[in-house]
Amino acid sequence: MTESRNGTVKVGIIGATGYAGAELVRILQGHPAAEIKWYGSKSYIEKEYASVYRNFFRVVEDICKGDDLNELADQVDVIFTATPQGFLASVISEEILQKVKIVDLSADFRLKDVAVYEKWYGIEHKAPQFIKEAVYGLCEINREDIKGARLIANPGCYTTCSILTAYPLVKEGLIDEKSLIIDAKSGTSGAGRGAKLPNLFCEVNENIKAYGVAGHRHTPEIEEQLGYAAGKEVVLNFTPHLVPMNRGILVTAYANLKPDGMDGRKVCEAYEKYYGKEAFIRLLPQGECPETKWVEGSNFVDIGFVIDERTNRIIMMGALDNLVKGAAGQAVQNMNLLFGLPENTGLMMMPMFP
Amino acid sequence: MTESRNGTVKVGIIGATGYAGAELVRILQGHPAAEIKWYGSKSYIEKEYASVYRNFFRVVEDICKGDDLNELADQVDVIFTATPQGFLASVISEEILQKVKIVDLSADFRLKDVAVYEKWYGIEHKAPQFIKEAVYGLCEINREDIKGARLIANPGCYTTCSILTAYPLVKEGLIDEKSLIIDAKSGTSGAGRGAKLPNLFCEVNENIKAYGVAGHRHTPEIEEQLGYAAGKEVVLNFTPHLVPMNRGILVTAYANLKPDGMDGRKVCEAYEKYYGKEAFIRLLPQGECPETKWVEGSNFVDIGFVIDERTNRIIMMGALDNLVKGAAGQAVQNMNLLFGLPENTGLMMMPMFP
Amino acid sequence: MTESRNGTVKVGIIGATGYAGAELVRILQGHPAAEIKWYGSKSYIEKEYASVYRNFFRVVEDICKGDDLNELADQVDVIFTATPQGFLASVISEEILQKVKIVDLSADFRLKDVAVYEKWYGIEHKAPQFIKEAVYGLCEINREDIKGARLIANPGCYTTCSILTAYPLVKEGLIDEKSLIIDAKSGTSGAGRGAKLPNLFCEVNENIKAYGVAGHRHTPEIEEQLGYAAGKEVVLNFTPHLVPMNRGILVTAYANLKPDGMDGRKVCEAYEKYYGKEAFIRLLPQGECPETKWVEGSNFVDIGFVIDERTNRIIMMGALDNLVKGAAGQAVQNMNLLFGLPENTGLMMMPMFP
Amino acid sequence: MTESRNGTVKVGIIGATGYAGAELVRILQGHPAAEIKWYGSKSYIEKEYASVYRNFFRVVEDICKGDDLNELADQVDVIFTATPQGFLASVISEEILQKVKIVDLSADFRLKDVAVYEKWYGIEHKAPQFIKEAVYGLCEINREDIKGARLIANPGCYTTCSILTAYPLVKEGLIDEKSLIIDAKSGTSGAGRGAKLPNLFCEVNENIKAYGVAGHRHTPEIEEQLGYAAGKEVVLNFTPHLVPMNRGILVTAYANLKPDGMDGRKVCEAYEKYYGKEAFIRLLPQGECPETKWVEGSNFVDIGFVIDERTNRIIMMGALDNLVKGAAGQAVQNMNLLFGLPENTGLMMMPMFP
Repeated sequence: MTESRNGTVKVGIIGATGYAGAELVRILQGHPAAEIKWYGSKSYIEKEYASVYRNFFRVVEDICKGDDLNELADQVDVIFTATPQGFLASVISEEILQKVKIVDLSADFRLKDVAVYEKWYGIEHKAPQFIKEAVYGLCEINREDIKGARLIANPGCYTTCSILTAYPLVKEGLIDEKSLIIDAKSGTSGAGRGAKLPNLFCEVNENIKAYGVAGHRHTPEIEEQLGYAAGKEVVLNFTPHLVPMNRGILVTAYANLKPDGMDGRKVCEAYEKYYGKEAFIRLLPQGECPETKWVEGSNFVDIGFVIDERTNRIIMMGALDNLVKGAAGQAVQNMNLLFGLPENTGLMMMPMFP
Repeated sequence: MTESRNGTVKVGIIGATGYAGAELVRILQGHPAAEIKWYGSKSYIEKEYASVYRNFFRVVEDICKGDDLNELADQVDVIFTATPQGFLASVISEEILQKVKIVDLSADFRLKDVAVYEKWYGIEHKAPQFIKEAVYGLCEINREDIKGARLIANPGCYTTCSILTAYPLVKEGLIDEKSLIIDAKSGTSGAGRGAKLPNLFCEVNENIKAYGVAGHRHTPEIEEQLGYAAGKEVVLNFTPHLVPMNRGILVTAYANLKPDGMDGRKVCEAYEKYYGKEAFIRLLPQGECPETKWVEGSNFVDIGFVIDERTNRIIMMGALDNLVKGAAGQAVQNMNLLFGLPENTGLMMMPMFP
Repeated sequence: MTESRNGTVKVGIIGATGYAGAELVRILQGHPAAEIKWYGSKSYIEKEYASVYRNFFRVVEDICKGDDLNELADQVDVIFTATPQGFLASVISEEILQKVKIVDLSADFRLKDVAVYEKWYGIEHKAPQFIKEAVYGLCEINREDIKGARLIANPGCYTTCSILTAYPLVKEGLIDEKSLIIDAKSGTSGAGRGAKLPNLFCEVNENIKAYGVAGHRHTPEIEEQLGYAAGKEVVLNFTPHLVPMNRGILVTAYANLKPDGMDGRKVCEAYEKYYGKEAFIRLLPQGECPETKWVEGSNFVDIGFVIDERTNRIIMMGALDNLVKGAAGQAVQNMNLLFGLPENTGLMMMPMFP
Repeated sequence: MTESRNGTVKVGIIGATGYAGAELVRILQGHPAAEIKWYGSKSYIEKEYASVYRNFFRVVEDICKGDDLNELADQVDVIFTATPQGFLASVISEEILQKVKIVDLSADFRLKDVAVYEKWYGIEHKAPQFIKEAVYGLCEINREDIKGARLIANPGCYTTCSILTAYPLVKEGLIDEKSLIIDAKSGTSGAGRGAKLPNLFCEVNENIKAYGVAGHRHTPEIEEQLGYAAGKEVVLNFTPHLVPMNRGILVTAYANLKPDGMDGRKVCEAYEKYYGKEAFIRLLPQGECPETKWVEGSNFVDIGFVIDERTNRIIMMGALDNLVKGAAGQAVQNMNLLFGLPENTGLMMMPMFP
């Protein structure tokens, strides 16, 4: 466990002008023990940060800087990289890691198998030597490993929601992991702030579609992590959908129940066993369905389930805010663990409704 | 096949002030061989129809009438009942059916087994004697039976989309029907125009949720119809979700492929065999995903699929407009069949984009 | 008045892959006396038109062609140019105009004063010699002039709504034209299909803003046309706002009433005098407020007003669909006039609600 | 100035299950010096508060109580009444006011003239004896009076935005107050959580309309307050519009500039004079337009303006979150003043974007 050099954790953000970067800013502005020292950007260098995100007008006075990790490493305690795939792997070094902690919001160090990374992402991995030491930053599952790490691979938004929803039942062997089908629905901020035709208001509004069917890059990440829980290889279906809303991910996951799982009480107990004391996971009463609106703006994950006796299947449902628990909130949660702060420091934002 | 008494089909609508009723009005206003003679309503009797739906200002001059089927039966050739469950069953009679055709948009005559109806809908069926003769009005599948019928059970919106999406593969035995999981997403007009808290703008907007999990009333309807195709009982999972948009249903259906089904070409051929000549079903190239926006306002159903070789599953996707092909459009398609009109008469509305 | 060369009007569209162009396609597909012969595009040449707008899958089989007006002029009766400002002026010629009618949806020929055009649009006008002959295509006001024209300047969306809302009262001198303030609200399709950051879903959704305040290019167009009605120069405030919806323009216009205007009956009579027989203008009862949803997808303009006796002002309100009456629908209405067809041919689309 | 009885301000909320009440809960949950002791409701007595607002699941454990102010007055330091018009006036008493402070989010004590209240609200005022002592709780303007008050009339959402936007220019005499026209646009949460047809998702989505034109109840409140600033009677036009979004109010206000006002620098100085040190008012650079999204979820008001030299008018624009600065946030700001807390305590929520 590292302590901040002078009481307050000094933070640098690379990719501060993307949606996840801006959410880091929103959360860290309210964090009592952190201070942002560096707003790194590729497209807006020398511009006022608050001119890019006008919500921070008169709140953030800083100017955007570049993305030089070596320079930054001398000035802060932790670096958040909210950058495109491949960026961190192309610049990371032992020297940097000896100076600062890194919480990477990209996928560069999430997958342990380089070949799987290169296949699903279609790019060469430039720093495979750090893959082994990187800790997968799903706090509720890898808490102890995170505390002592130098490099955190912050999970993806779909992934966080999918894994947390199914984990206890996979771990306890209550469901047949080969039968897992994850149908996920996401708000549009997950697509980022790039000016692309499919993300225009008129293309997204009043519309719903699946995309990346049988080929979305979060699939192997979910499979790997649930594989650790199952103690064997997991291959599953993951289908993301684009929903006309800004924020929120809802996962509806289907699996065949093993004989033990057909008892709702045992399912409840499994969830309770792993999440009963978690600050950010809220287990809904059996039969109740989570809604993304109930967690919007917060770091909560709401989880519920229904057992269908007619088909012997369980329908597990999880909801989170893709920019908070699915990105920036979880990154700050990891930072809190890394620096010995109470895990929920600066993260008790209430969900905003309506 | 019946001919209209004087060239033009005279139409009565009961439940004309609900969303499906209003969509019947929109479509029939542009229908060259039909004329609405009766705008039936429960809540707005004696009020101008165009005061209830201001979009019809200066288009519809009529006054809302009541819901007396006996009186109406003497004045029109066909009655559309867009009414709550149980209404038609409580008033239908042999006398009425000898005078007019009925196209029922409610669920009263969709299920052949009264016990199943009473279990899922929780009400007593008041006219079981007409269940057998009622024809399930899914035109693409039951076209010939529809032509000679007196009573059409117009399919539900989720149902139409679910059945049409999976039918050819079930019929041809390319998928294991026991493995079917249907994850459906619907716009909010499917919930009707009732003033209920969960349907308020602020509750639906920026939100997505599942509802009726493992218990939605459209489940047995899908199972029954796919059971006919399979030649055996089908039990499946059906999970509806509420999406913040006005119109549109997207079905994402998962099934294990039988050995024969693993060949994309055979899947294509099966879809082509049943739908290749259909005016309203558009088969997308393999791998392409339908979007609800591409069918909005039209009677089209767009169907696509992806085969996941990693899991040996197929992901079938279907999209339609719940108020058109999922309700009023299909009802008019049935009317056209009943009265010997070209099936697409008055139904070639182009999808509206954006 | 021109007749089509062989009964059906042959149509070419330049800019068919923008939103207004696509709306022309939607409307003309249902037009009984027109046939699209040329889908012109700049970015999608040689691509299937239906691959750009998937709503036309299996409806339009054509391939996108280029934007060579000279080539096109030999093949069609009328050309619609839904192109950026300056395009038509840079290619139009006497030779072309001797062959075909042109309905221009851009602003190139809307303003009679070249200097005003060049000031507000910031570009040089390349064909000022055709400005005088161009007829401003606001059918309800310039109907007779349109019939014999070769070149129609189709009004802008904000402009159509603003002018039609205020015209009768300006013309009849019931309001003080110097006091006119027009506060307009538009759906996002008015911003076009360009992939620009401010038009991304997440930037528009859950947001409203004014833009182009005191400098929007539609201002001089409104002023010029209302100036003709007033018989003197009109200078007014026009403030557009971006609303999170796909379609629709609502204009709320404020003006001081002259003594005569304070009588609601006289105001009604003025509206009735100019619009009483119009097919596409629906005058709401005094005190009723139009809603954009009531006209969506149709060529209607709904107009209402309220007199505020406390301030001696009138609040005039108009609503239309910016892609229909505000662009493509009006263009087709002009085409109908040009070719001697009944003015509402192919334009009786019912508004879609919800 | 009152101090809390034991260091923490004990709070009671009447109307805690409306949207404004729920926003009070969201804000006060993060307030370091306040504690909610009473969740009062009319419809949900004895129900868990978190079952009514599921976003508070596992955050709020309390049960809803009734609306007995006398009982409540013995238990708390301050009561927020987020109740329908007329409620507080019907139950308030000297006895209650001697025990607790009251911050009233309804309109009961906003207007000083009973006759005006009774005319615009259409109900008899039951407690006119307290009108005089009530302080209009617009903190930026009445700060000193608020500190010593017993009864605060918390301003309405439209009102706060309208007044703050125009106040400095009216006060400094830079605009002709008789020419003021306020065109306001609001998100739908302003309409409350009542289950009414016009507030259904399908009626609001993809729609915009004006309502209450020339007769909205916030009009006299704006007039009265701006009248104090002007030192004479102000009569103006106020037109609210319903926008398809959850939160946010945008005011676009038009006024004729007096000769002095035509100088942008003087306008800037006037705004700076009154708001330069305000924590919650952010003055945008001249020419920049505020957007509701930039203040969502926060207590900020963003204000900008444009001078139109062509018409000698100024267009002033203000944006706020109707549930925060327009209701609950301002109420807490008032509470902070009443109890001698730093005014921004618990109110530094960052705006959420996107």
